[in-house]
Amino acid sequence: MATLGAQVREVRRGSIEIHFPFSGSLTQQNGFVHAGAITSILDSACGYAALSMVPEDHDVLSVEFKVNLLAPAVGEEFCARAHVKRAGKVLTVCAADAFASKSSQEKLLATMLATIMAVQRR
Amino acid sequence: MATLGAQVREVRRGSIEIHFPFSGSLTQQNGFVHAGAITSILDSACGYAALSMVPEDHDVLSVEFKVNLLAPAVGEEFCARAHVKRAGKVLTVCAADAFASKSSQEKLLATMLATIMAVQRR
Amino acid sequence: MATLGAQVREVRRGSIEIHFPFSGSLTQQNGFVHAGAITSILDSACGYAALSMVPEDHDVLSVEFKVNLLAPAVGEEFCARAHVKRAGKVLTVCAADAFASKSSQEKLLATMLATIMAVQRR
Amino acid sequence: MATLGAQVREVRRGSIEIHFPFSGSLTQQNGFVHAGAITSILDSACGYAALSMVPEDHDVLSVEFKVNLLAPAVGEEFCARAHVKRAGKVLTVCAADAFASKSSQEKLLATMLATIMAVQRR
Repeated sequence: MATLGAQVREVRRGSIEIHFPFSGSLTQQNGFVHAGAITSILDSACGYAALSMVPEDHDVLSVEFKVNLLAPAVGEEFCARAHVKRAGKVLTVCAADAFASKSSQEKLLATMLATIMAVQRR
Repeated sequence: MATLGAQVREVRRGSIEIHFPFSGSLTQQNGFVHAGAITSILDSACGYAALSMVPEDHDVLSVEFKVNLLAPAVGEEFCARAHVKRAGKVLTVCAADAFASKSSQEKLLATMLATIMAVQRR
Repeated sequence: MATLGAQVREVRRGSIEIHFPFSGSLTQQNGFVHAGAITSILDSACGYAALSMVPEDHDVLSVEFKVNLLAPAVGEEFCARAHVKRAGKVLTVCAADAFASKSSQEKLLATMLATIMAVQRR
Repeated sequence: MATLGAQVREVRRGSIEIHFPFSGSLTQQNGFVHAGAITSILDSACGYAALSMVPEDHDVLSVEFKVNLLAPAVGEEFCARAHVKRAGKVLTVCAADAFASKSSQEKLLATMLATIMAVQRR
């Protein structure tokens, strides 16, 4: 998150939005932001969305996720929006979309479906 | 679909809703509808949603899907709603949710993220 | 499982093999066995593999799975082989492959990666 | 790949092994290598495995992948092994495992199932 210059905006119970600016250091040889960076931001967004619904003394851990990469990641700014599909005592399931914005138009880049586990902080 | 007594309702370009009634023949020993039936209906819903956006002389084929099973499938009627996340020339990505309804209240049972391929009909 | 006429063979700790014969009642209009049947058998195989590694008073529950459908399901007999990738206290992760056999030659039909939860029997 | 200091070893048709050393710059606050780095290396391994089986004038593109994170990533060196489950004209399906090694003992960290597309180089 820090290496991506990411910033958490709009946290509500069960949903979240993360923004990060375009950075040359995240691009591949073709000028597109690396799928790994997009995946990390989606994973983080799912984690924060889940965290907003677990008890205060719990942390969250990604169990697994699936990502569909839908379009090359080009843009001035990127954002990921995640929401909780189901919050359970042990497992929380989240869906998230990543968008690129350019001149205030959004384009869907990738979508994730993730399973997250709540673990009591020690 | 036929064995499930399923019925397609509300087809729009890129989204679809399928309904099917509760049937004792689909239940497991515990009285819940089998996850396989819920998965099939989600897969069908994704297929129909994709089909609504491919050229007329094309069929669709499921490449892969991921399902999260969220709650035991009990209810009087079940429905699946799918929508296209991205329609491409070759691949279409769809998300779908399955719900049980009982006394007009809906409960989310399962959620799917699927990749579907368009193939020219011969 | 019963409707599929499936039979469990070769159970070892952490791995399992399930067989079922070709049946006309499982086929689609094109004569291929339905993806839903293949998915169910893979899901069952993963469940049994996980079950072989959880404490005796526990049952297993599919949390989520991903399936890649690799080839049309034609053959005289089908089998699914599953093995545990990691057995945890709460979650077990299994991989499984489904094969069609014809004249003792095997063809890979589908592959699954699944997350399974152990729940104490009441 | 470069930022991870990764090195490709043992390429055969349809399978590959990638190694990379432990680096403090990839760790999270808890000293574990970030799941994003493990996911990137698994994704790269799947891509290289697929690439070994597509025609020479084609590149590969990740369509989607699912990862199960199985253990915290600690170790002196990491490696990912990928193999092709099915190579098609358009789509190739790969499975990959990531391991940490410490004093020549290996521990499974994560497992991936991925769909990769071959695209003709322009």
